[in-house]
This record gives sequence, structure tokens and C-alpha cells, in this order.
Amino acid sequence: MAGAASRRSRDLTPDLLEYHGEHVAKVKLEALERLADRPLAKYVVVSAVTPTPLGEGKTTVTVGLGQAFQHLGRTATVAIRQPSMGPTLGIKGGAAGGGYSQVVPMELFNMHLTGDFHAVTEAHNLLAAIVDNHLFQGNALGLDIHPLAWRRVLDVNDRALRNVVIGLGGAEDGVPRQSGFDITAASEVMAVLSLATSVADLRARLARIVVGYTKGREPVTAEQLHAAGAMAAILAEAVKPNLLQTLEHTPVLVHMGPFGNIGTGNSSVLAAENPEDVLAGSSNLRKQIENVRIHGVTPVVAVNVFPSDHPSEWQAIEEVARQAGARVARCRPASEGGNGVVELAEAVAEAAEEPGEFRFAYAEDATLREKIETIATRVYGAAGVDYSPLAARQLEDYERDGFGRLAVCIAKTHLSLSSDPSLKGAPTGWRMPVREVRASAGAGYVYPICGEMQTMPGLGRHPATFDVDLLDDGTIVGLS
Amino acid sequence: MAGAASRRSRDLTPDLLEYHGEHVAKVKLEALERLADRPLAKYVVVSAVTPTPLGEGKTTVTVGLGQAFQHLGRTATVAIRQPSMGPTLGIKGGAAGGGYSQVVPMELFNMHLTGDFHAVTEAHNLLAAIVDNHLFQGNALGLDIHPLAWRRVLDVNDRALRNVVIGLGGAEDGVPRQSGFDITAASEVMAVLSLATSVADLRARLARIVVGYTKGREPVTAEQLHAAGAMAAILAEAVKPNLLQTLEHTPVLVHMGPFGNIGTGNSSVLAAENPEDVLAGSSNLRKQIENVRIHGVTPVVAVNVFPSDHPSEWQAIEEVARQAGARVARCRPASEGGNGVVELAEAVAEAAEEPGEFRFAYAEDATLREKIETIATRVYGAAGVDYSPLAARQLEDYERDGFGRLAVCIAKTHLSLSSDPSLKGAPTGWRMPVREVRASAGAGYVYPICGEMQTMPGLGRHPATFDVDLLDDGTIVGLS
Amino acid sequence: MAGAASRRSRDLTPDLLEYHGEHVAKVKLEALERLADRPLAKYVVVSAVTPTPLGEGKTTVTVGLGQAFQHLGRTATVAIRQPSMGPTLGIKGGAAGGGYSQVVPMELFNMHLTGDFHAVTEAHNLLAAIVDNHLFQGNALGLDIHPLAWRRVLDVNDRALRNVVIGLGGAEDGVPRQSGFDITAASEVMAVLSLATSVADLRARLARIVVGYTKGREPVTAEQLHAAGAMAAILAEAVKPNLLQTLEHTPVLVHMGPFGNIGTGNSSVLAAENPEDVLAGSSNLRKQIENVRIHGVTPVVAVNVFPSDHPSEWQAIEEVARQAGARVARCRPASEGGNGVVELAEAVAEAAEEPGEFRFAYAEDATLREKIETIATRVYGAAGVDYSPLAARQLEDYERDGFGRLAVCIAKTHLSLSSDPSLKGAPTGWRMPVREVRASAGAGYVYPICGEMQTMPGLGRHPATFDVDLLDDGTIVGLS
Amino acid sequence: MAGAASRRSRDLTPDLLEYHGEHVAKVKLEALERLADRPLAKYVVVSAVTPTPLGEGKTTVTVGLGQAFQHLGRTATVAIRQPSMGPTLGIKGGAAGGGYSQVVPMELFNMHLTGDFHAVTEAHNLLAAIVDNHLFQGNALGLDIHPLAWRRVLDVNDRALRNVVIGLGGAEDGVPRQSGFDITAASEVMAVLSLATSVADLRARLARIVVGYTKGREPVTAEQLHAAGAMAAILAEAVKPNLLQTLEHTPVLVHMGPFGNIGTGNSSVLAAENPEDVLAGSSNLRKQIENVRIHGVTPVVAVNVFPSDHPSEWQAIEEVARQAGARVARCRPASEGGNGVVELAEAVAEAAEEPGEFRFAYAEDATLREKIETIATRVYGAAGVDYSPLAARQLEDYERDGFGRLAVCIAKTHLSLSSDPSLKGAPTGWRMPVREVRASAGAGYVYPICGEMQTMPGLGRHPATFDVDLLDDGTIVGLS
Repeated sequence: MAGAASRRSRDLTPDLLEYHGEHVAKVKLEALERLADRPLAKYVVVSAVTPTPLGEGKTTVTVGLGQAFQHLGRTATVAIRQPSMGPTLGIKGGAAGGGYSQVVPMELFNMHLTGDFHAVTEAHNLLAAIVDNHLFQGNALGLDIHPLAWRRVLDVNDRALRNVVIGLGGAEDGVPRQSGFDITAASEVMAVLSLATSVADLRARLARIVVGYTKGREPVTAEQLHAAGAMAAILAEAVKPNLLQTLEHTPVLVHMGPFGNIGTGNSSVLAAENPEDVLAGSSNLRKQIENVRIHGVTPVVAVNVFPSDHPSEWQAIEEVARQAGARVARCRPASEGGNGVVELAEAVAEAAEEPGEFRFAYAEDATLREKIETIATRVYGAAGVDYSPLAARQLEDYERDGFGRLAVCIAKTHLSLSSDPSLKGAPTGWRMPVREVRASAGAGYVYPICGEMQTMPGLGRHPATFDVDLLDDGTIVGLS
Repeated sequence: MAGAASRRSRDLTPDLLEYHGEHVAKVKLEALERLADRPLAKYVVVSAVTPTPLGEGKTTVTVGLGQAFQHLGRTATVAIRQPSMGPTLGIKGGAAGGGYSQVVPMELFNMHLTGDFHAVTEAHNLLAAIVDNHLFQGNALGLDIHPLAWRRVLDVNDRALRNVVIGLGGAEDGVPRQSGFDITAASEVMAVLSLATSVADLRARLARIVVGYTKGREPVTAEQLHAAGAMAAILAEAVKPNLLQTLEHTPVLVHMGPFGNIGTGNSSVLAAENPEDVLAGSSNLRKQIENVRIHGVTPVVAVNVFPSDHPSEWQAIEEVARQAGARVARCRPASEGGNGVVELAEAVAEAAEEPGEFRFAYAEDATLREKIETIATRVYGAAGVDYSPLAARQLEDYERDGFGRLAVCIAKTHLSLSSDPSLKGAPTGWRMPVREVRASAGAGYVYPICGEMQTMPGLGRHPATFDVDLLDDGTIVGLS
Repeated sequence: MAGAASRRSRDLTPDLLEYHGEHVAKVKLEALERLADRPLAKYVVVSAVTPTPLGEGKTTVTVGLGQAFQHLGRTATVAIRQPSMGPTLGIKGGAAGGGYSQVVPMELFNMHLTGDFHAVTEAHNLLAAIVDNHLFQGNALGLDIHPLAWRRVLDVNDRALRNVVIGLGGAEDGVPRQSGFDITAASEVMAVLSLATSVADLRARLARIVVGYTKGREPVTAEQLHAAGAMAAILAEAVKPNLLQTLEHTPVLVHMGPFGNIGTGNSSVLAAENPEDVLAGSSNLRKQIENVRIHGVTPVVAVNVFPSDHPSEWQAIEEVARQAGARVARCRPASEGGNGVVELAEAVAEAAEEPGEFRFAYAEDATLREKIETIATRVYGAAGVDYSPLAARQLEDYERDGFGRLAVCIAKTHLSLSSDPSLKGAPTGWRMPVREVRASAGAGYVYPICGEMQTMPGLGRHPATFDVDLLDDGTIVGLS
Repeated sequence: MAGAASRRSRDLTPDLLEYHGEHVAKVKLEALERLADRPLAKYVVVSAVTPTPLGEGKTTVTVGLGQAFQHLGRTATVAIRQPSMGPTLGIKGGAAGGGYSQVVPMELFNMHLTGDFHAVTEAHNLLAAIVDNHLFQGNALGLDIHPLAWRRVLDVNDRALRNVVIGLGGAEDGVPRQSGFDITAASEVMAVLSLATSVADLRARLARIVVGYTKGREPVTAEQLHAAGAMAAILAEAVKPNLLQTLEHTPVLVHMGPFGNIGTGNSSVLAAENPEDVLAGSSNLRKQIENVRIHGVTPVVAVNVFPSDHPSEWQAIEEVARQAGARVARCRPASEGGNGVVELAEAVAEAAEEPGEFRFAYAEDATLREKIETIATRVYGAAGVDYSPLAARQLEDYERDGFGRLAVCIAKTHLSLSSDPSLKGAPTGWRMPVREVRASAGAGYVYPICGEMQTMPGLGRHPATFDVDLLDDGTIVGLS
């Protein structure tokens, strides 16, 4: 969740844009080159303390903060992830912010936008079809069916697709095997697209994607399957960022939505806690502030004020923040728009002037196990890490296959600093169970999957989708 | 495959359009109302004799014909289906026509366009997720797991997904059952969108979709599952037609791509046959002309001339057409553009002035079995129809459930007039095997699946996708 | 269902027997050699008209007839199939006959006996395990996974095992594929054991069993998989027939229980029809008598008299039999034992003196299709045969693989002369649908599976098993 | 593996036996009552140090010891488990002992015997069929499909059956769900039969078998499914022990073959170690001696001497045993029969006179977790126990369901004292991973499954079965 304060957005002249309907544009990639000599902006990351299940307002604060900088006479561009339609139509409803701090048009933002997620789905599943076709056509590369890691993706919350057997039927219907679907946001293609710095880099990263291994334990890549070119072609439009705006006309760049955050830095923290959670919230906030500093970044604590909160709660939070030596400011983005976030914007601007340099929490030449254990103990407060036999075997394989120098991104619940969603505050003494480790060789990182966290969500008993409808005049209702 | 000669396209003023990039626009639905008082155009349908596996040039002739009308001083708008990305990246390569008779920009036309197919995929699979979630949450409606007809769709050629077991895993992973995927073009949602006459009609048709039956044999609809509203919302943009143009700037409406043709009328027929196939081709052509007349329409035969053809072949075709009493004209759309199709355009214009009225091949109050048997024997030349036990049971159920008055659309191979792709010409004496009958209650028709025809294609040993690539400057290559 | 009148059983001296408990013995195979010079007995086959779902008393009449010959001063040995535990514990209850015409001890006869069925299960499933192990170990023979015909068997009515996916799990858990279970009685090993004439012939037939095909369409045999030797060893005891006795001490040979009858000859026919079924019963009886004669055998009609029958029914049956030129006799095996079957025994003895020679209904050099169609039309009264695409392909393959000269044994419901259990009497004008054709190369025949007939039964809502129990003193109750 | 020295076997007069062929008898259950007043014999348990993969000769020593007692003028009866046909035809070859210390006839002993294992298979699978039929017939008890623990069994090494999806097909083919097969020896029915003290107790234990849980977490038993009676009836013969003899005519009781040992007592220990393994062997032997004493039993160490061993190895073993305070004796059962085991028999007889009383390693009122952890740390030398989330949940459920007082039997590899087959000697510092815990409520114990241990073995690349054959004269070759 990132809000970038930048001088650049005003330079996105119409000839660098392609319009998609009346409210959305794609930015041509030649903008990168055309604007290369402009000064760099400051990059402000908005994160949160451990949230309630309904979210906590990161987007609203981010949008409000972007708007607020304009009230201070500064130019800012908001940069946020595109919402995933699965959760949007599942539990969350819309993800455009709220009240006077929203991205518009909300309907387009929440659904399809310019089709980038769909292009990821298409490219990902084309590779899957090519993998299974390779097996079907005689398996010339000798792909081993078992560690065949390339699953399929859909942008729908659909637990029934987590574990499937495919290739059933008759002689013309493929090779039977176990597989499954993840949500599109969890696709390695999504991560590749997020990290690509040019068309050539996109093509090269796709080529490096490892779909599985031969029986002799050699990795097999998308390039070997002749799939990377077509995947890149499918993503030709998706690689261009989308430009929208806030209710106060602040430019908003929307591009991709990788599953989970990469990096754990936090520059501002929000709390809307119940009274009984204050103690837990305090330890959580203190630990989050510490974690921001671990990465060499200056933290600012934002208190997202709701009319129904108790002032005593705000004061308690401010007290904790000050004791931890962090700037703190209240804000009211939903009810007051940018105007209600000016105080926070000033604190952020001040913090941004402080010297500081981002650093990884772990040494870059550490082994994968060392990196995982450093994050688990230093950032999350674990007492140690337990690996399943599968995870242990995978880590060994990745080191041997030359993936030991990749970055590590922990996939775990966001409902706790630990891997157990029921542990609140800043839990210690727990052990982080790693049940599986996946390598995204194309994207360039390895991600351990910890605890019972899912890469394909399910729908609830009354999913958000039940309330969404299309009126006869074409108006969409039910996306909040 | 339809080419509509119309006066309307010039009336699509900019305020009725929404641009999507620099070469594509969506037409706002208010155009329907705004242009309601303009005179109706003539509707020319381009079909073909039984084709070779590589296709036969229907799109090229259609585009050429549209261009040719402008050379005659008449206004024409071409209307064609959006290509399915599965076959485009599978066997066919691009589907934009060829040579000087093409739709541009070919890359956008062939891939994604404005995302309508992806919206269909999303809406269809959301309904599937809701169906499986309903089972998982306790199955309050008592859905019977066995005749649960609602499958999932992807716009990828992927035979490994034809027959799958889903819902495996643990207690949190859904209810195990057999299911499968079709290609997006075969989705009932695609058909619904093709047939919808307004937003309200779209919403109503989606609501009527039958996903399965209760154990007491009552149909269960998308509306009962609270899914139709969200599906309609997902399709809010897709319902608007797309506007592109040909190389000669003839407007081209591109909208949806239902699987197989609905209706069997043929107004013009193309042949590019090898000498040894002339005899078979003749009987096929004669039967196709007869089939056009069965529906009350005047046929015109087009001979799509390739430089490598023998003139004797053209003459043979012309002789057959004339004996059958049909107009005939040679055309060269790929090598000469609209100019090479003027003679054909004149013949078509002449035929369009003849009186004629479209009629169904069968009586509309016939039973489903009678309709199937009429089409099989009268249009396809079958000696009779054989039903599998499953198909027989389904037809009985549909009649009982009140679907007996729906139209019938035969799903069978397009590589023969029969259901056996190896039978060329106009085969007789064969029996049409109906292995399954699906009801698209929302779209409003029933489709028997005949012979070994698949609703999910597979990839070949060297799929088209292997040749597609994205160059560093963003150029897509390999889509012909 | 066979009752053999023979002088041999008295020659089975104790040194040719191995006792299994106090009431059952196995006959050593050296008896074959030792008794080779004794005169051959007459072979009397007991069959029935189309039965009611509860059976019709074939075993009771057979046992009664065997007992009756002793009353005539003739020596007879009863030979019957061992009951399958699946149906015994499913729908049928015991199969030992009834009243005063029973095989004893009924509990041992109905369950396990000397374990022959279990040995078939073990040998069959060992071959299956070796097949899947061959795939797992690298598939050196190149077995094609798809036409892999060798399923598994269990002697339990268990519909949930008809269609399964096996080999799931991880890298150490085999190769995923679709397969299924049949009931043990349907095993080709059971048929092989029934037809084997010596240990050497058993070993040779097992070796010839075809489990599947290579990708180059070469059949793969049990011998190639090094399985035939161990299978034969497993069957070393099962190859010896079991000797029991009736309540009147008539010897009873019990050996094997192949699924369905091989051959369609009928020497005596039973009826216990309801009044309203008399007309249907008449045509059925007439057709059954005709079918016996087609095979060159002399028919005798037995009327199995129940106290609750109407005498008018008996007379109607006798009238039909006489019109058809067949001997007819009433019998009361259940209520009167052998004494009640003397009249029938005399009629059978008389018929057995008539000249006659068994012949196949079809020419032995006919193709498989011709054989199937001859049986369907001449014996069952069908108007013709419809083959599914799968069945058509299989027949083509079998002819090509050299199995075209094998015998044909139709697998269909026994509840009708047709393949549709709802058609009573002697139906005509129906077409026999062949959905699959299996080759038992080891047993030496090909069997088309017709209609919706199952090779693995299911349990009903209140299966027989619910009433079976073991009392504290070791008495088994609930097997009737 | 048990060898019982008893005065009883001579009292098994012929009227208490039922012969099964010429070499095997079943003992009638009335023998229990008839011999109730005879004095109790001493019970000698033969176990081993951690073995080589090929086994270590426990049966040979047991048989030799039984024979040796006769040389001492004492009466002894050998009691051993019936071999499982899966491993016999898989990796092990025969299990009848070797050389002059064998059970005869070896062919019958190794395969089928009197069919007891097959009866267990049949009873177990009948219950499974009834469970799936219950789901199919409407699931009146509301069985939850997910913790549905009752799998199926076969006495074949068949890894492809470990994880399967069953109930596929159509509406008549059952309810799809995940399940799997274990080897028959692992069946709870096998354990029930091993532990039953009478027919009534057998019936009662079968009735208590828990097959799964309702959605409200109530256990569902075999009795509730009306299955226990039929299961008991199927086991009516299997409940009787089998009587065979050794080559020296010592009586041998053979009955059941539960998977893994129940109880961990060791009264005599065998070693045949390579020189380089002496050190590891020493620590293993020391720990095994300690473990015997933990249970209150007096250990005797047997050195099973092979001609190819080095005398220095024997001396090393004897030194270790003596240091640990245990009696030690060399023996040569294979080459010399009972005569070569006299010295060991004397040591055993002497030890048997010592006072001692068997006790559990854990307190009987401990929780299941406490029991598991006591065995892991005290007997196996583990540093602690790790539970998978599944195992933790299951233990919680079992305590709640009232199974907390059941005994605990650890299921783990026999190739190490630890749960990791690669750790030799007496490893310490390792943690025992419990991946799943199964409750055998009928048998009366709970068994945690530790490490990667399988309940269904697979076949190797050249399974024993390849060498087994049946000669034309009926001789079986290739076993042992």
C-alpha cells in the first residue's frame, strides 16, 4: 500500500496517455524514458497495525494523505494496488477508500479496470495449458509430475478449486494429475509484472519462471516450453500503469496487485481499536514501529479518527507512539478528505527530510533458512521456525538449484504479527510453522507459506456479491 | 459470421463512443435509443461450405465485402465475432481476416480487445464459485450434486480441464465432486450477452440461468443463488459493442463470440477446393444452397479466388451454383481488398432486394426431439438420430421442466455436414448420435452435443502460441 | 447353474480329499487322472425364465433334482457355483437352496467356503498392484495409461468403488489415473479358474491375460509383467473343487462363480408367476424353449410349485410348454426334498437319452460383430445392435490384435431377455446398446457390456447384511 | 513376535481341532473353557535390536527356541503372527523361519493359511461399503464427510491405493470423496480380532468401532450402521487360532497379524551386525535392554550366530550385554535346529524364574499427549514431540470424546529407535513428529502415526513376487 509524493504526475501530458473510457487512462511506457531526467520523489509507504478482519482504512488514509499534500502546496501522486475481484466480490466490498478520500470511478476501479488482472490470468493459465499439453504430447523434457508446481489461477474466491484432480476423461483428455488453483493475485506472473522495469525485463523474467523439474531434478522454465513469448504478448497492455484520480483530483496510479506485501516497512500506522484491545494494540504498535526502524526508515504514526472512537483511545495510542520516539498525528480522511489529513501530511513531510536508507532485515548472502529465521525472529517475534518435511526438502532443492540468493517474502496471515491469526498484540514464544516453500524464480523471490494461510480464498455464508446488482439504467449498486 | 450493410454506422457520433486506446471504441447503449428511428439495414450472413481444418476465409470475404460496398457508393458496417484467445493461441493464429481485407489493429482485435470475454469468464466462474459455496455452506436449497450442470470456463485451449474432480483437500476446502471446464466461448453467459436486447433483458436472462436441480427435480436458478445481480454488474461494460475498422476504414462492430453459429442460414458460400475434392465439394455446396433456401433466404455463392487455384475449379463451382439456381461471383479480398469484391457485392445487393422471409426449419411448437430430428434429417441429411441414455433422460426432464418450447441449436463438428468429421460432401444414411443435451435456459435454447465434439479444445504438438512473441519495443509478432 | 448326473462321486475316496473343517473337503487334482477311465455322465443344465428380482429358485430345483435321482436309484452329483459374498450380504441373503432342498452347512457355503473367491481377489489385485508399480517404476514397457483395462476387484457390493481416481498423494504414492473396482465374480481370474483344465493350463491362461496396451498398440500380458507365476501360486488351493452335500446327502461340487452364465443353453425352466404376468411369462417361456433348441439341446420345463400359487397358473404354463413340444413336470423341492422332484427327474432322464449335440448359435469363424449380432437377434430377439464409439473402437482393436476368434459372452441384465430390465416377456423391435467391450484373453472370450448393467453392484437401503449376526455361542443368524 | 512356553498344547486333543487340509488345524473356541483349569505357562517375548532392512531372524530364533525347550524336556508352544501376503509377495519372501528352524508347511503358512486375513479384509470392507452406502442413501445420521476415518484395506502392497477419490461416475455411483486403502494388517478389525477374548467380546468390540463423526461431532459406530453383526459373522471362523508345527514337531499357534507390535517388551535380543556397525549396535542394544527393564521384565540377549560372522563381533555383543547386567547366549537355529538353541533356552528358563511384573511405561490415567510423550522420551530417547495441526486437533477431539483413557501404541518405522529410519544406534536429541493420530475405539487404543511411515506399503523394482511360480505338478517355488 504505497502513496508516492512526486513531482512527476503533472508531466504526464496527454500524448503519453491512452484513454480507456472517459475516466481512466493507461500511461505509455515511453513516459519512463521521456521523464527520466526529472528529480526523484520521496516514497511514503502506508501500512497498519494488525487489522480487524474488515480492514482498517489503509487505502482511505493513503488517498487522504495524497490529497492533503495538495493543501500544503506540494504535488503528490497516489500509487495503490488494483483490487482483486475475488475478495471485492467476496468479503471486502470495494477497495477504493471511503467518504471524501476515494478513488473514482469506484465501479471501474473495483472491477476489471483495464483488464490487467485478466491478462495475468490468461498468461498464467496459458502456461499451465502448455505444461499439461507437454505431458500429453509425450513429455519430451521428462517433466516429473510430482513437484509440478505450476498451478492455475482465477480471480474468484473459490475454495472448491484449491485441490483438484485434472486430466480425467479418456485418451484425448490429458494426463491425470493433482493440481489446484490460486487467486490471480497470488500468480507469479502478477509478481513478475509488478517487478518488471521494461518490456525486455518482463520478457526475460517470464522466461525464467520455473514450472517444475525433470526426473533428473533440472528446473524446467517457461522459455523451454516456448511459452514466454506468448505470455509477454498477452501482457503487452497490462504492463502499462493505469491513471485515475481521487475525489479531489489527485492523480492515482493503479498497477497490479501482488498477493501480500513485499517488504515489511511501515511509515505510518493506523489504529481503531476497541477499549479492551488497547493493551494488545499497544504492544503491536510498539513492535510495528520497531520493525520500521529495522529497515532503516523513519516511522510516523497516524491515528485514523472515527466519530465513534473514544478520545481516551487516541491519547493512549499517541502516548505509545511518543514513548517509542515516533511522530504521531490524527487524521480524518473519510469525513474531511485531504483537509482532514493536513496535520499528518506535515508530519510525513518532516520525517521524509530525515536521513535514512532502506536496508534488508537479513544479510543478502544468508541462506534461505537464515533469511526465513531472521525475519521470523527479528521482525515477527517468533522463538524459532519449524519446517515440514516438504518445506525442508524444497529449501534444500532451491539452494542446490541456485535459488539460494533470492529474496525471501513470508506468506502468512495478516491478522497477526505471528502466523496464528488468533494471537493478538506482539506475541512472543511462538514457533513459525513453514508448511511449504515456493520459488518464484521469474519474480526473483522465494516465499515460505506459514501456518494455515490460503492462496485461494473461499466465500462466506453471505458474500458481498449477494448485494451487488446492475440497475436497468446501467448503474452498479452494492460496491461500497 | 455476419456482415451487416447498414446506414447506421455514420450516425455513431463521438458522444456515443467511449475510446479504449487510440484505435478501439465502445458504443454506449444509449445509441440504441438515439438511433431507433433510422431505417433498418439489410442483414447479409456470410457462411461457408464445409471447411478445411485451417478455416476457409469467411472473415476475409466478410471484410472484403464490407469494403466493396463502399466502392459501390453504399454504406456498410461489418459485424463479426470477437476471436476466442484459446483457438487464436492454439491452432488458428489471428482471426482478423487477411491481406487487404483485415480488421485493425490486429493485435488488439485478437487478444483481450476491451476485455468482454474476460468479463464473461469472470461472471461465469463467480456463479460456479457461488454454486460450490452453496454446497459447502450446508446446501440449503438441496441441490443435487449429480445433474449439477454449471461447469467453469477459461479462454484457453486446455484439454486437461475437460474433466476434473474439485473440492478435494480438507474440511475447509469444499465439497468433492466431478465437474469440468469449457472454453469461454461455450459459456451460456456468452450466449446470454449475445442475445440480450437491453441491460434489463441481460439481467433477466442471467437470472433465469439454471445451474442444476434439487433432489426433488426442481430447477435452481442463478437468481435463487443471489448471483445474477453481481454477474450483471460484472458484465456492465461487456454489454456495449466494440467499434473498430477495416484497412479501408469500413466500420467494424465486434461483439461477443458464441460457440458455434446459432441458426444455420447461409447467404453466401465460399470454396477453395483441391481438384480431387471437387465432387465432394459439389454435393456439399448443393446441400448448403438448399439449406439456405429451407430458411427462406436467397443464397449467393462467392468463389474466394487464390492465385494458386486452377481456373477449372472455379468454373466447376460456378456451374454447380448456377444449376442450383444461385447467383455466383468470384472475389479476391486478400489480394485486392474491397476492389476485388465489387462483383460479389453487386450480386449480394441484387439478392437482398428479392422478397424473402426467414423461417425456422422446424415448427416452433414441436417437441425438442422433433426439432432435433428435423434439423438432423432435413438440414444435415441424417437418416435418424440416436440418443444416449443420458440424453434421452435429459430431454424428458427438459420437457417436464417447461423447456420444451426453447429453440434447438445443434452442437457438432463444423468439419462435416454430418456429426462425423471424416464424412465429406453431403453424406446421407448416417445416424446422428446425441450424447448429451444441455439447456441454456437463460440464453433461451437447448443444445444437443453430437458425436465426439468437444466444448473445450486442446493444444496441438506445435501450437500457434509457440510463434507469438513480444519484442523489446512492444511489438507483438506471430499473430498472422 | 448346473446339475450333473454322474457315477463318479462315489469314486472320490478319502485319500482324494482334503478336509476343511468337519463338513467340507477339497478334491485333490490327482482325482482327474485317477478317475479318467470312468464313463462320462450326462450333464443337465438348470436355467430359468426371466426371473423376479428376488430370484426364482434355480438352486432349490437343482438340489432337489440331484436328490430326486437317488430316489430313482441313480447316482447324481450336484454342481453349483459358489455364492458371491457381495450379493449374499447385499440383496440376496443365502444361496444354498431352500427348505428340504439345501446345501449344508449353509453358513460355510455362503461365506468364505474354503477361500477360493478370496484367492481370486488376491491374485487379481496383485496383478493390479504390479501394473501400477510398473508405471511407478518408470514404465519400461511403455504401457498406455488410457486403455489400461485391468481394474481391481472386491467381493463386496460397493458402488462407491465403481469409478475411482488412484495414485494420488505425493511423489512416493504412484501414478494418478482413473480406474475402478468390479465385484470378484466379474474378475477374469475367476473365469480363467473356471475354465482351466489343469495346473499347467491355469498357469498358461493367467500368462495370456492382457492388462493393457503399449502406446504402439501392442497388448501387454501378465507374463510380461512377471505376474502370472505368483498369481498361479496364489491360486494353488483354489484350483481344487470343493465337495459338500445336500440335506439328503447327495454330493455337491462347488467351484468358482463366474459373473453371468457362459453359454445360454436351458434344459429346464421354472415359473412362479403372478396371474397378471401369465401372458408375458408365456412368450418368455416359448422363447427360452426355442433358445435351448437353437443350441441343439433337448428342453424340459419344470414348474416349481409353491403352496400359494394358483393351479390355473401351473396349467397355463404346462399348456405353453406342451404347445412348444417340450416335456413338462411339476416339482416341490423346498417342501418335499428329492421326493417332490421325482417326476421331473424322470422327465429329465428321458430327455437325456434323446440324441442331441451342443452347437454355438453363431459360426465360429464369424467376426466379433457378427457373433454379437447373431446372439442379439437370434437368441434375445433384438432388431439390431448399436455400438458406442468406444465399443466400436474396441472391437476394431480386438480383431486387429488377433482376438477376433474368441467366443462372445454377452453381459447384460438377467431381468429381461432384452438389455432393458423393464421389458418383460419376449420383447422384439428393441436395439441392443453395446457401451463397452472387454476382452478376457486369458479366459478366452470377449464380453460386450450392454445397457446400464453394472460389474460392481451397490447396496440397497436395507441390505441383507443388516439382519446377519453372530450369537455369543458362535451361531450365525440372518442368512436364509 | 511371541514364543509361549506352555504345558497346554498337549491337551489340544483331536476333538478340539478342525482340520484344514492335512497339515493345518483350527482350534475350537471351546478349548478355552475345557482347558481353563490348567496351570498358566510362562510367556517369553522375542524381539530384536533395530534390524537391517531384510529382517534379522526373529522368527527363526523363536522357532528354534521353541524346539530347544523340547531338548530340555520341557513343553513349549510357539505362537507367531500370520504373515501378511502383501509384504510376503513384496519385499520379504516367506516368513516361516529358516533352515532347521521353520514352520511347515511353509506354502500354506505364507499364503492364505485358513483365510483369516481374507475374512478381516472382507469384514473391514463391508463396513466401508455400508458407510458409503449410508452417505448415498441420504446420510440419515448426518456423517461428516471430512473426518470420515474408515478407509478400506487389501492384503497387497499397493501404493497406488494410498490416496484415492471414490464415488465418481454418475448419480447411481455413490458420493464423491477422498479416501484410501491400508494393508489388511493395519485394519482395526485385525487388532480387534487379536484382542478379543470371546465371541461376545469380538462382537462388542466390533460394535464400538468408530467410523467417523456427525457434523455435531458425535462419534458414529459400526453398531449404529447395523454392520457389527455381519462383520462378526464374517469373522466366525477367523476367531479360531490355527495350529501348525515346526520341523521338529513343536506345536505352533498362528493367529492374526496386527501391524506393528503392540507393547514394547523385549526378553531376548538378536544381533548380526557388520563390524563397522558394532558401535551403533552397542548403544542400540544397551537401550533395548533398558527398555525391557522399564516394563518390569527380565531380558536375555541372544546372539544369532551365522557362519560368516566374526567371533570378535559375538564377543563385543556379549560384553555389552553383560555390562548391562543381562544374561546372554549364542544360538544357531537355522543350521542346527532346536539343538543349536539349547544354551539360550536354559538362559531363558532361568530368567523366567526371576520375579518380575509387567507394567506400562506410562501412568494409565495420563492424558494421550502425556502417554505419547512418555513413550517418545523414555523408551525411544526423543527430546520431545511435535504435533501437526491435524494431530493436535485429533488428540483434543479424542480426549473430549472419552477416548483419553485408551492405551497408546506408537506407529513408526521399525528401522530405528527414532522415527527417522536413517538414525542408527540409540539416537538422542531428535524430536518425534506426529503427523496424524487414529483412534481404534473398538480395539481399545489410539495410535499416533510418526514420521513418514506408511500404512500401505509399495512394491519395489523387483518385488519378491517376480520369483514366485507354480509348477505343473502343483509345487510352489520362490517363497523364502
